[in-house]
Amino acid sequence: MTVAIKLYDLCGRDERLRFSPFCWRVRMALAHKGLEFTTQPWRFLEKDAIAFANHDKVPVLVDGEQVVTDSFDIMRYLDDAYPQAPLFGEGASYQRARFFKHYVERSVTPALFRIVALDLLAAIHPDDRDYFRETREARFGCTLEALHQPEQGRGLLKQALAPVYAQLKDADFIDGDSPAGADYLLFGSMMWAYSVSQEPLVEDEDEVDQWFKRMLAVHDGIAGKATTVRDIA
Amino acid sequence: MTVAIKLYDLCGRDERLRFSPFCWRVRMALAHKGLEFTTQPWRFLEKDAIAFANHDKVPVLVDGEQVVTDSFDIMRYLDDAYPQAPLFGEGASYQRARFFKHYVERSVTPALFRIVALDLLAAIHPDDRDYFRETREARFGCTLEALHQPEQGRGLLKQALAPVYAQLKDADFIDGDSPAGADYLLFGSMMWAYSVSQEPLVEDEDEVDQWFKRMLAVHDGIAGKATTVRDIA
Repeated sequence: MTVAIKLYDLCGRDERLRFSPFCWRVRMALAHKGLEFTTQPWRFLEKDAIAFANHDKVPVLVDGEQVVTDSFDIMRYLDDAYPQAPLFGEGASYQRARFFKHYVERSVTPALFRIVALDLLAAIHPDDRDYFRETREARFGCTLEALHQPEQGRGLLKQALAPVYAQLKDADFIDGDSPAGADYLLFGSMMWAYSVSQEPLVEDEDEVDQWFKRMLAVHDGIAGKATTVRDIA
Repeated sequence: MTVAIKLYDLCGRDERLRFSPFCWRVRMALAHKGLEFTTQPWRFLEKDAIAFANHDKVPVLVDGEQVVTDSFDIMRYLDDAYPQAPLFGEGASYQRARFFKHYVERSVTPALFRIVALDLLAAIHPDDRDYFRETREARFGCTLEALHQPEQGRGLLKQALAPVYAQLKDADFIDGDSPAGADYLLFGSMMWAYSVSQEPLVEDEDEVDQWFKRMLAVHDGIAGKATTVRDIA
């Protein structure tokens, strides 16, 4: 009997709309490993539903008896439990993936936030919007309206992604000929912005755009087939 | 008989002053592998001296019959020729080191340049200064005097290094418990600025400062013992 893997996954105003960058990392990682899984849609205020994990945010992964939280720890867990097709690897390889995670979170994601802030708010379930606004405005120290500066965000994004542009001149994926951990870490954030907004993020058909389209197609198009704001009235 | 490895290494107004970020990568990589080597001091205009390598910049590495140029290619060569203690590793590990190289060159080094531009000019041999000014001003599109903005540079550096600060909260070195390729890639640039200038780069005793001091000490203090502007009248 196969033990089903279950992923608690953030959803928006439409239950099919799944946009958490951290959940996307895990979905892609599960697909990378060829593991079947189901998702449990979850909203920001449903803290009780994941209290069993001693954690108040998704992703939460339930794999039989194992409960794992935090997207990076989940990916690490998947490498330990399912060693085929490593996401991170060991030693320096793992440490460089950890560096890449910090790079995405500290340098890339804040630029993306400026491009999609108000679209993100609109994608969130109406009951969750006060919570979202309060926590994010406290984190950034300004209103979402002040944060929402798509043009400026695109400039910051281009600057932050300069090493990715250089990397993709010589390889189809950040991790080489096929995607692995670093690709999923960056993709999670790009997919988050793409899922909630129709704002252009990078220039059409530039290296990052082409990479993003390749990422939408890999693993039977798990990301390309996902519901985005483009599909919702 | 051991074939001696020889490194053509940029020198400044004092022949002992060696500050090229790319040469420092290679010196540290050679020390990491436990390889003995000699250096051949070289100045910007001595193109004839390295014409045998079909290249006009240092580092140039001569290892017996092998002549290798470009610091990253030299490090890759060392991993192939001397597989002990890998610098980069293979597959995704190598690709992530390549990303890190782009990160250092695109995000970190330009910030450092703003902190030390005029000190760097002063460290260069008087005969080389016109060449240096001309090539760098063309690259940056402004005079060295306009570029030299230490306070602004430190702000940019802190921002660019945000993922390194996060990385070093959980490990002594970027590549983990001991230094490897990624550490040397960043160290080359930091050592370049430190060798030519007494301007503070980061805050005293912060994570990056502590890492830099550890890097000065590794491999019998090869970097810590090097001549810097502090030692030259």
